[in-house]
Amino acid sequence: MPRTVRFRTAAAGVTAAKGFSAAGVPCGIKTKRNAPDLGLLLSDRPCVIAGLFTSIKAPAAPVQWDRALCRRSIARAVVVNSGNANACTGERGDRDAAGMAIAAADSLGLDPDQVAVASTGIIGRPMPMDNVVAGILDAADRLSPDPAGAAAFAHAIMTTDTVEKTLAVRTVIGRRLVSLGGSCKGAGMISPNLATMLAFLTTDAAVSPAMLRRALKAAVARSFNCITVDGDMSTNDTLLLLANGAAGNPRIDRPGRAFDQFAAALEFVCVRLAKSIVRDGEGATRFVEIRVTGARSDKDARTVARAIANSPLVKCAVHGGDPNWGRIVCRAAGCGAAFDPAKTRLRLGGALAYSRGLPARTSLDRLQAAMKEKDVDIALDLGLGRGTATMWTCDLSRDYVKINADYHT
Amino acid sequence: MPRTVRFRTAAAGVTAAKGFSAAGVPCGIKTKRNAPDLGLLLSDRPCVIAGLFTSIKAPAAPVQWDRALCRRSIARAVVVNSGNANACTGERGDRDAAGMAIAAADSLGLDPDQVAVASTGIIGRPMPMDNVVAGILDAADRLSPDPAGAAAFAHAIMTTDTVEKTLAVRTVIGRRLVSLGGSCKGAGMISPNLATMLAFLTTDAAVSPAMLRRALKAAVARSFNCITVDGDMSTNDTLLLLANGAAGNPRIDRPGRAFDQFAAALEFVCVRLAKSIVRDGEGATRFVEIRVTGARSDKDARTVARAIANSPLVKCAVHGGDPNWGRIVCRAAGCGAAFDPAKTRLRLGGALAYSRGLPARTSLDRLQAAMKEKDVDIALDLGLGRGTATMWTCDLSRDYVKINADYHT
Repeated sequence: MPRTVRFRTAAAGVTAAKGFSAAGVPCGIKTKRNAPDLGLLLSDRPCVIAGLFTSIKAPAAPVQWDRALCRRSIARAVVVNSGNANACTGERGDRDAAGMAIAAADSLGLDPDQVAVASTGIIGRPMPMDNVVAGILDAADRLSPDPAGAAAFAHAIMTTDTVEKTLAVRTVIGRRLVSLGGSCKGAGMISPNLATMLAFLTTDAAVSPAMLRRALKAAVARSFNCITVDGDMSTNDTLLLLANGAAGNPRIDRPGRAFDQFAAALEFVCVRLAKSIVRDGEGATRFVEIRVTGARSDKDARTVARAIANSPLVKCAVHGGDPNWGRIVCRAAGCGAAFDPAKTRLRLGGALAYSRGLPARTSLDRLQAAMKEKDVDIALDLGLGRGTATMWTCDLSRDYVKINADYHT
Repeated sequence: MPRTVRFRTAAAGVTAAKGFSAAGVPCGIKTKRNAPDLGLLLSDRPCVIAGLFTSIKAPAAPVQWDRALCRRSIARAVVVNSGNANACTGERGDRDAAGMAIAAADSLGLDPDQVAVASTGIIGRPMPMDNVVAGILDAADRLSPDPAGAAAFAHAIMTTDTVEKTLAVRTVIGRRLVSLGGSCKGAGMISPNLATMLAFLTTDAAVSPAMLRRALKAAVARSFNCITVDGDMSTNDTLLLLANGAAGNPRIDRPGRAFDQFAAALEFVCVRLAKSIVRDGEGATRFVEIRVTGARSDKDARTVARAIANSPLVKCAVHGGDPNWGRIVCRAAGCGAAFDPAKTRLRLGGALAYSRGLPARTSLDRLQAAMKEKDVDIALDLGLGRGTATMWTCDLSRDYVKINADYHT
């Protein structure tokens, strides 16, 4: 990322970019009365679209719909609902996903092939299509390019999220002011490749399909694929990026300065949104950054970082503010990656906790203080090579158990 | 396992077999006053010994000591402490592990090379050797072949365990009454290869070193390697089996009927002890059996069974008694094993929950009842081949978090 790139963060999320309008309405998919559960996003002109999806072997119906759409690279709108995942719903699920696109296309005067669909919520229940269609008509009437439209959209995609996750930046590319913004939802079932989540990003930059995909892949590798809440992937993970070209910049169709600027802005937004998912993980009280260096390979580093990030024992220690470095070292030593205790150093909040097979002489008070921070920093140097990886996660609290034990099918 | 083998379970654990005596005493390793934390086990004659150990890349000092001892195949005694794992303790740890063997050998009139050593507890603290040596002398004075000796030993190896885990069986092999018994401890940091735990098994059968190792490997593959509490392996996992030949049976030195009988008795004891570890998992309120069939390979089946068993979301659903089959199917579909939703069937407590891509028509009441059992039965048929695997685990409760967040370094 060029270090000279500057952004201004902007208030609106999916409507920060020119030409986009959005809405969010309640339509009765969620059992809670008047909870917003249907979002609609429209561009006033055709967009280049790029998407990344769950790698699970039983993807939900809307994921399959969007994969086909992203192969064509052109879209005008997105319809999304929360409260029902439309997953494990068989052929009826496929018809319902198409039905959502058709209803949105009808009410917006578009071709259904230009409408992306996303769903999140409970698995294995048929979509209440009467409610969904009514919601789409209602949302189409309320589409707004104002921040209020983006906020309503952000609200409508939430499930167990406790806060809306929205961000936008502005930067100059090709002498034009370009905006890039988005919203995401996460909370539970969060794990890399992708993090289990929905994210919708919009920009008014003009970008070719190939370069848009390239920028998105790179940004996601350094953001959404670095987060985990509980190691579980979902059927519905979807990330969509729409670029409508309304900023009027010369179209970015090759590597170079303009592409680098765009990619940097995209990575900035993705990192911030991804971290916001972890900070709002189910029951989370602390944010944890795990940096692994000195691994034999980047792959080994990722294995170690992910093993630590997904260890219930480590996450409980973080919750308790306990500098239990033994659990961290154990997890690194037991996950299959190359490991030599005599070469390993572990730092908690910058303070050496374990070095070359032995506990360090750092005072317990110092280590405890590091673990009681709101943001906990775990840095493990394996001393074996040049492999590095970073993961972001949260602690494991009683509230995570409460949320997931009391959530009833 | 031959189905005709009959066992009588017996009261004593490690002293059920002839010629073994045991003791357990408090010596101040644990901070809690008078908590038993040192166990001693002695055979009145040389034993053949077989062991299985953690596969972690930073094993504790006693594990390294015992590996060397098991290569020589001969032992007379075991000394074990709880409260301190003697792990991440560097060269001093190695000296202390040897010191425990030397102190036990001195007080029992043995060669230190005949004494196995095991430790469990906190990582990274030097062993309080003055206490340990005093405890060994005390325990040597109290060695008893009675059930009380076995019970004191079982008690002394506990950490966060809430119950002693002890079992013995008697059976006739080669016209002689043979006894086989043992004790183990587990509770947290429990995962396959091995389950993170200590287990000590004794038998008065006469068995050759090679056949003892063979029987132990087979039994552990079907027992301790099938359990998981939280997916974490420890630095100290140790399982030792001592056979002293006092039963006077013709020495088992080849495959055949006598070997099969012995192997069956050993598997029976290992399965019961392994399950008792899961039932007493930290904060556990339910026992879960996960049976995967129809996988493309046994390896795939194990991957799926383990992924389900270690999913915090599945474990929370079990805790809440919620038939959230979506989480189970998701985990199976997302763990990397071959998976086709159209061929998959999931049963909860025998009732069909999901079949070929769709929720089954079983009533929610029926499924809920299955998940509210004390023993929850999850059977997943992937419909792709002949691979099978079984895992045993427990639910994830607020108490697990409490125990592991409030445990302080």
